[in-house]
Amino acid sequence: MSDHVKNASIVSIGNEVLSGRTIDTNAAHIGQQLRLIGVPVVSTHTVADRREAIARILALTASEADIVVVTGGLGPTDDDLTRQAFADYLGVELELRGELLAAIEALFQRRGWEMPLKNRIQACMPKGAGVLTNDWGTAPGICAEKDDTLFFALPGVPREMRKMLEASVLPRLRDFAQGQAVSVRRLQCYGAGESTIAEMLGDAMGRDRNPLVNCTAHAGVITLEIVAMAAGEPEAQAMVASEEGTLRGLLGTLVYGVDEQTLAEVVGLKLAQSGRTLAVAESCTGGLVAKFITDVPGASGYFTRGWTTYSNEAKVEELGVPEKLIETHGAVSAEVATAMAQGARQRAGADHAIGITGIAGPEGGTEQKPVGLVYISVDQADGTTTSRHVFSRDRSSIRLRAAQTSLNTLRLGIDG
Amino acid sequence: MSDHVKNASIVSIGNEVLSGRTIDTNAAHIGQQLRLIGVPVVSTHTVADRREAIARILALTASEADIVVVTGGLGPTDDDLTRQAFADYLGVELELRGELLAAIEALFQRRGWEMPLKNRIQACMPKGAGVLTNDWGTAPGICAEKDDTLFFALPGVPREMRKMLEASVLPRLRDFAQGQAVSVRRLQCYGAGESTIAEMLGDAMGRDRNPLVNCTAHAGVITLEIVAMAAGEPEAQAMVASEEGTLRGLLGTLVYGVDEQTLAEVVGLKLAQSGRTLAVAESCTGGLVAKFITDVPGASGYFTRGWTTYSNEAKVEELGVPEKLIETHGAVSAEVATAMAQGARQRAGADHAIGITGIAGPEGGTEQKPVGLVYISVDQADGTTTSRHVFSRDRSSIRLRAAQTSLNTLRLGIDG
Repeated sequence: MSDHVKNASIVSIGNEVLSGRTIDTNAAHIGQQLRLIGVPVVSTHTVADRREAIARILALTASEADIVVVTGGLGPTDDDLTRQAFADYLGVELELRGELLAAIEALFQRRGWEMPLKNRIQACMPKGAGVLTNDWGTAPGICAEKDDTLFFALPGVPREMRKMLEASVLPRLRDFAQGQAVSVRRLQCYGAGESTIAEMLGDAMGRDRNPLVNCTAHAGVITLEIVAMAAGEPEAQAMVASEEGTLRGLLGTLVYGVDEQTLAEVVGLKLAQSGRTLAVAESCTGGLVAKFITDVPGASGYFTRGWTTYSNEAKVEELGVPEKLIETHGAVSAEVATAMAQGARQRAGADHAIGITGIAGPEGGTEQKPVGLVYISVDQADGTTTSRHVFSRDRSSIRLRAAQTSLNTLRLGIDG
Repeated sequence: MSDHVKNASIVSIGNEVLSGRTIDTNAAHIGQQLRLIGVPVVSTHTVADRREAIARILALTASEADIVVVTGGLGPTDDDLTRQAFADYLGVELELRGELLAAIEALFQRRGWEMPLKNRIQACMPKGAGVLTNDWGTAPGICAEKDDTLFFALPGVPREMRKMLEASVLPRLRDFAQGQAVSVRRLQCYGAGESTIAEMLGDAMGRDRNPLVNCTAHAGVITLEIVAMAAGEPEAQAMVASEEGTLRGLLGTLVYGVDEQTLAEVVGLKLAQSGRTLAVAESCTGGLVAKFITDVPGASGYFTRGWTTYSNEAKVEELGVPEKLIETHGAVSAEVATAMAQGARQRAGADHAIGITGIAGPEGGTEQKPVGLVYISVDQADGTTTSRHVFSRDRSSIRLRAAQTSLNTLRLGIDG
């Protein structure tokens, strides 16, 4: 492969991972270490202890990556087949290396044991392949090059793998991948769906661009990840900054934060900065909004109290919602949401208050007031905003979206 | 492939998994579900959102598995390429299916939105491929057969994937893999750690037993999964029932529920059955207990109201906690937790009430009252139980464990 950004594939070998008995932490660790030196991972694979399957995956990864890191299958037992499969793929035989055998025998001697015959196989290498020294166990690693791809095979024992990766693999890759810097920034958006945002961005989301913009959606939050690659760090950062400016220009107030920020964090930051306080009154979300707000360390600086008024009596007694209002409009109505927010703000003596009432389901919906109907009200000194929403899917999604939307409404209200 | 045990490969598509941003829970879930119906997994793969890479991995998996389950890449944006790659691999074109387009348009209409143009692509299928209905989102799945291998492509959104796997994929595979019956039951435990429970169970947790008992821990809940295999369904079920009896005998009241039951569900069931009601007063958990309780459909039948009294004033004004008590003992004290529970029960006129106060951190700890210190009080007609806990790790874990422990205390209190 030529003058592009060097990338990698990761291969884990072993039945114990596939059977669900062991969680494969190796692949995650290797991926993290590679990304840190600017080598993106383009695929990961886990295959069984079968010689042909291993050889086949080596050939496949050679076609898509510049670097392949393999773990597992280097032990001394009959189901350790990575060595043989490597030889098959390289089209060579295994050969016994005298110096490796001596080193393994010495290791056993130091532990006061005789070397079992089975361990002889660990001194075998595909003809012509390089050795990666293992100072932490019996299995040496393998280094080989074919089809313009550089292969490293490491033991599956996490401790040995990590030590060898650090000592023998990463230093070589730092040279190999040098001259490329990666800069990443995430923009967090709320208030429009994935496809709407994609349409607003148009070409900015095209394939094979640099910077590249990836889009993912979770719980109504759309995350845009900007990834720029360049010869140097400052250049990559400048590319990300410029792209961020373009995206913000296109999306306006849909962008609420960066990196790992949640809506509750951004709202909390605004409240803390302005020295203002918040109270919440929840019905269908049942404490979820308060939970989100108090997830943020330091929330006690601006969040004073919240109510979960699940019954009508609670709405009347705790928040002073007029009984008549509930009788006339029903507990799920714009009028009651408004009265909840206003009552909460007044009782708490807070600057802002949220009121939420709705039908989270699965029961309780009618034709006029279906499951998913939620009224959200935000009350503050300059007035009250109450909005009507119909969220879809199940109880959990409806509650989640209602809570997030209330925080987003508050965010826009504080800004305004 | 011929008369052998049918096996499977799992393919996850998406840059967000490879970049380390998202943990791929899909592959683990699918693997578990396949193993439960007796289908071993021979390989798993994660590849980037690149059309050729996806097509290449489909060809590779066809050579090693009878069944291939693919997730991801069925969204509406330009980086969703599973449909196109499938068509490439099958050697056909994509075609727009009128009935799928109508269904997607109807879904948007129900939500009160216009369908963005981008979503049209989700109505496209490789020519000749079968459709897997998606009743939980906009992306239908794909079903196709080639090279004696059966392919299923599902959306990457975990919820949609799980529902479709259950509804459309597993039933077909159960027939395909028939001949072995598996019965599974989960016991949910709270109140002791994983190693304590393992010691209490002793031999029952040995390897290679049938039934096998797997143990996993999450948020303080220890899940014991009993898996029995036999020639017939009744035999496997009897084995599970017998093992369940043994485990329950050893663990007593540590077992709070079965299968997917949460503590809040079990507490809710007990309250609903006895016609009694519950109120909660939270400080450090900030709404999380109320959230857990109202996660359960029908919670309005027994849960009337909750308070998040984050400030001292709120504890005094809303719950009638004596100011003097806070001055003397501090807001984080057994006395204040007790007064919160009692105040909440009285104000709400409820049969049971929970009061929680503690230090979730990361700030606010002292030598005498460290981060993680939490007092939990449960008040009911026959008296008040208040307990002191020091939970470890971070803010999120401390809040989670405090909320769960309060529900567990209530569960044991209702029983008693």
